[in-house]
Amino acid sequence: MHKQIGLYGLGVMGQSLARNIANKGFSISVFNIETDVTKACCQKYPLLHGYENIADFVDSLEKPRKILLMVTAGKVVDSVISSLVPLLSQGDILMDCGNSFFLDTERRQQELKEAGIRYIGCGVSGGEKGALEGPSIMPGGDRKAYAEVASIVTAMAAQNDDGSACCTYIGEKGAGHFVKMVHNGIEYADMQLIAESYALLKNYYQQDMKKIQTAFQRLAQGPLNSYLMDITCDILRRKDDKKEGWLVNYVSDVARQKGTGKWTSQISFDYSVAIPSLTEAVQTRFLSMNHVERTQASALYPHASCKMEITEEAFLQMLEKAMLAAKMSIYAQGFSLITSVSKQKEYHIDCIALANIWQNGCIIKSAFLKDIMQAFKEECAYDNLILSSVYQKKLSETQHDLQNLVSLGVLQSLHLPIFTSALQYMQGITCATLPTNLIQAQRDCFGAHTYERTDAQGSFHSDWQA
Amino acid sequence: MHKQIGLYGLGVMGQSLARNIANKGFSISVFNIETDVTKACCQKYPLLHGYENIADFVDSLEKPRKILLMVTAGKVVDSVISSLVPLLSQGDILMDCGNSFFLDTERRQQELKEAGIRYIGCGVSGGEKGALEGPSIMPGGDRKAYAEVASIVTAMAAQNDDGSACCTYIGEKGAGHFVKMVHNGIEYADMQLIAESYALLKNYYQQDMKKIQTAFQRLAQGPLNSYLMDITCDILRRKDDKKEGWLVNYVSDVARQKGTGKWTSQISFDYSVAIPSLTEAVQTRFLSMNHVERTQASALYPHASCKMEITEEAFLQMLEKAMLAAKMSIYAQGFSLITSVSKQKEYHIDCIALANIWQNGCIIKSAFLKDIMQAFKEECAYDNLILSSVYQKKLSETQHDLQNLVSLGVLQSLHLPIFTSALQYMQGITCATLPTNLIQAQRDCFGAHTYERTDAQGSFHSDWQA
Repeated sequence: MHKQIGLYGLGVMGQSLARNIANKGFSISVFNIETDVTKACCQKYPLLHGYENIADFVDSLEKPRKILLMVTAGKVVDSVISSLVPLLSQGDILMDCGNSFFLDTERRQQELKEAGIRYIGCGVSGGEKGALEGPSIMPGGDRKAYAEVASIVTAMAAQNDDGSACCTYIGEKGAGHFVKMVHNGIEYADMQLIAESYALLKNYYQQDMKKIQTAFQRLAQGPLNSYLMDITCDILRRKDDKKEGWLVNYVSDVARQKGTGKWTSQISFDYSVAIPSLTEAVQTRFLSMNHVERTQASALYPHASCKMEITEEAFLQMLEKAMLAAKMSIYAQGFSLITSVSKQKEYHIDCIALANIWQNGCIIKSAFLKDIMQAFKEECAYDNLILSSVYQKKLSETQHDLQNLVSLGVLQSLHLPIFTSALQYMQGITCATLPTNLIQAQRDCFGAHTYERTDAQGSFHSDWQA
Repeated sequence: MHKQIGLYGLGVMGQSLARNIANKGFSISVFNIETDVTKACCQKYPLLHGYENIADFVDSLEKPRKILLMVTAGKVVDSVISSLVPLLSQGDILMDCGNSFFLDTERRQQELKEAGIRYIGCGVSGGEKGALEGPSIMPGGDRKAYAEVASIVTAMAAQNDDGSACCTYIGEKGAGHFVKMVHNGIEYADMQLIAESYALLKNYYQQDMKKIQTAFQRLAQGPLNSYLMDITCDILRRKDDKKEGWLVNYVSDVARQKGTGKWTSQISFDYSVAIPSLTEAVQTRFLSMNHVERTQASALYPHASCKMEITEEAFLQMLEKAMLAAKMSIYAQGFSLITSVSKQKEYHIDCIALANIWQNGCIIKSAFLKDIMQAFKEECAYDNLILSSVYQKKLSETQHDLQNLVSLGVLQSLHLPIFTSALQYMQGITCATLPTNLIQAQRDCFGAHTYERTDAQGSFHSDWQA
């Protein structure tokens, strides 16, 4: 009997996805370059059929073959493809479920098209647990090829409360991996926003962890409810296994990253889209890496940490609203990148469907995504969510608190790059007139780069020092 | 008689550089792909010897030939090199004086090395006027090759008050074009800082241009004195040629860019260096391009522009100090990128010498560069200028004003991305403990990415939901 699907790559995520597929009743062949790993995995999970030889693995699959790749992004993907291609037939489907860079995915699609192989670039979010129990899945590329794997992929995915699967065809070419990349960019900013709120609460409660826990518990149950807020509550309550006190207090503040946030930032510059909070989140991880420098500098520049003159209840209410406004700004930035790149590259991404599949299974799962769906339902062609009445209403209720919180935090010498950049983004995008006319004049003055006028068409040059 | 040097590319910058060289008494051959341009140029400037045929141009030069390229960065450079190489001899020197991307320069150096051609990547700043009268020049690459052109290049450069030339060998490989790129990144931030100060003054003086002019005049004469501040004063005083009022008020706020600021931002992510104010400056130009969106959004989100409760004198003093503190932050960011990349790529850049050649001829020429030289003289190996006593002293006098200005501006709903990011950068880099420990805990919780501890070596993983 030929198997319905194959999976190449039995790392943590690969094993979880394979088990997920098998648990849904599909027959599955698996392969790993290290035979020992395949053996151990198939002994542990008898529903998985392992192969030592790659040709046997490929031969075990029904045609057109469907092979899911779950290997490290980068050169490994290319070498795995090279080893598979000679064994495949016209019309077979490869589906890369790793965190591949979307422009690599587009190159591979093009290369494989010539060999008659159909290539789907598929973003998968949810970590190890999500991969096993139901991740959010973002497939992009050949639409017909996707239709042939859709039943399996949809079965693997998380489900929303309304029964819809957290999986939808995203768009042409590299659209799947592109939105997964932006998902991670948003995730970085969401995480940094929570970290800054934690710093604000630490400062306000003078480090009293019990009070910080209670505050986060409350925040996590309101409109800010999200997967990241929920695990933050768990994390803050976790005691160290051996020592006195809370585990998080023993964790180094040097934050690592694996590159998707960096790509999101770099790509935004190629497509001329401002996503300052997403870039700040990545840059703050860089700052965190300079531990020696920061320690030296902190001795030279002592930060004031005075008690804030505001009641506990008022502070918490202000924080909640400020977090919500900042989160709205983060998502406006992220979605503006998605809509702009979707236009420029003709991906035809449906933002309502995208917000829908992010509602469960993935790291940025949050109650707020319902609002985003609502906003796009009003007008699916919004270039920026800030123009929606959903945003207008919610920002009118929260933006003032964000201003007050930033003003207060700045005077307290706190490091709040997400809160401040999120606010600044909204101030900028809602300004009919920016002072950048002066920049155009400067450029024309020193470089004869010309400028445009508000009262006439065309390009102009002036002798500014006349 | 063979000529001492050749110049390929007679655009605005090319003509100015050629005339500059000729004016210094060197014999120079020039070539342009369009023969008409060459003819017209040489008729106008008889010191320049033009050639219609590229082989004649090359043959006209003494050996080893020294050819300066001044063509559009990108593929044009490669195609010009391809057309020249068959005509060159071993040991000839090409010097690319355009705004080439430094990694392209390194690729070209490598490719040409095999052909025995020595390639210098040379940053030139100063615009058209600077190119003619004396720019700031940043050569990098083969040190011996540079020694052979040094006398000509140094003669072309601007001079400082102490008689030193604004030209120095920057370092190995693409170091010259690299520092020129960062120069432009800093330039973007400097320009945006001035634009925000202009917006603050407009807001404070309720658009009274005479008062804004007077304020800028005063600011430009103090410690903020710089080329950009000087031309800003000229710009603000320039009346429109035809219509009533000030020319700058007729300039569109849609700001353009040519790519070097974008490269600086993108590269900072590859080298893991936070330069948030430099990235914000580029992103603000992107925001400025969304004119339609901003106009629509401004109608939905009216900005308050109430009178600030602070005297004119106090406001101007606060603004001056806040600008100085922000400028210090911008330069700390820019130089941290330079020192970090110089280390990672072994360029061995001398920051004192670099700050010295930026004191004149270039767009970021400013009085403040003397302070940077002083800081690096204290300790040339600073990873971050914030650690210098020069910074400590000046920030202790100014940082509080930056905090107050940001706090005030935020409550006024002003868009101040450089002021805020510059402040946030300093708050972050001087923090011994950032709340990023929470981010490491989150990453370990959802992705088993492991974390480090403050009290033990190694990587750890915990079940955070236990």
